[in-house]
Amino acid sequence: MVYTIQLSVSGDFDRVVETTIDALKDEGFGVLCDIDVQATLKEKLGEEFRQYRILGACNPTLAHEGLSEEVELGALLPCNVIVYETDDGEVMVSAVDPQQLVGIANNEALDEVANEVHDRFERVLASVADAFEPTSEA
Amino acid sequence: MVYTIQLSVSGDFDRVVETTIDALKDEGFGVLCDIDVQATLKEKLGEEFRQYRILGACNPTLAHEGLSEEVELGALLPCNVIVYETDDGEVMVSAVDPQQLVGIANNEALDEVANEVHDRFERVLASVADAFEPTSEA
Repeated sequence: MVYTIQLSVSGDFDRVVETTIDALKDEGFGVLCDIDVQATLKEKLGEEFRQYRILGACNPTLAHEGLSEEVELGALLPCNVIVYETDDGEVMVSAVDPQQLVGIANNEALDEVANEVHDRFERVLASVADAFEPTSEA
Repeated sequence: MVYTIQLSVSGDFDRVVETTIDALKDEGFGVLCDIDVQATLKEKLGEEFRQYRILGACNPTLAHEGLSEEVELGALLPCNVIVYETDDGEVMVSAVDPQQLVGIANNEALDEVANEVHDRFERVLASVADAFEPTSEA
């Protein structure tokens, strides 16, 4: 099942991460969690891994709406946008599809929030595509 | 759909959080992300909300296995354990069901990792239940 909305671009990895964080801010998402997977796997396991960041994005208003509707929803939050190097040396920006993620809860009352996050993530990827040379479409 | 494994206990909220973090450590999970939902909603929106923490738990070995199998998996990581006050003044400890979460990916090669995380989360909740007075079974 496709559970992410993807875009690959040519560009410097760190600059793509910064641009993604800025684009998330423009859509009202703070990055509450920023995991450097490469550094973590190196430190904990001594393993080499591709550059890979997990950005946990949270729009407080939408999170509040969702949590007020369903208290357990936090088990699925924040919604992640991941940025990683591909095998071809490109940079993939990939947002979890909130409709798939929140779909686990099977609660129609959450559809509106999930749709709103989805639309905003589409605009975040479009904004990253504008700043770099896309090698695939979001 | 049930997408969490739950346990409610009587106890001091912060002590339950600490015990949960310790129990996660005992099962090889570091908490890579610790979101204080109450503080975040107060700061960002001025909204009052119940005490609520989102602990993003990561077992590096299992994460490495999963990511090596499916590079997009980071969009669903880390696996959360949430701790929150219930309307009855109890403390709920609720772990996302990794079998449901990873199930979105529909990739059988991830089943083993998901099952392993599930078993460890069961033991984490059992350990919390041992430390406090459970008011429900995990």
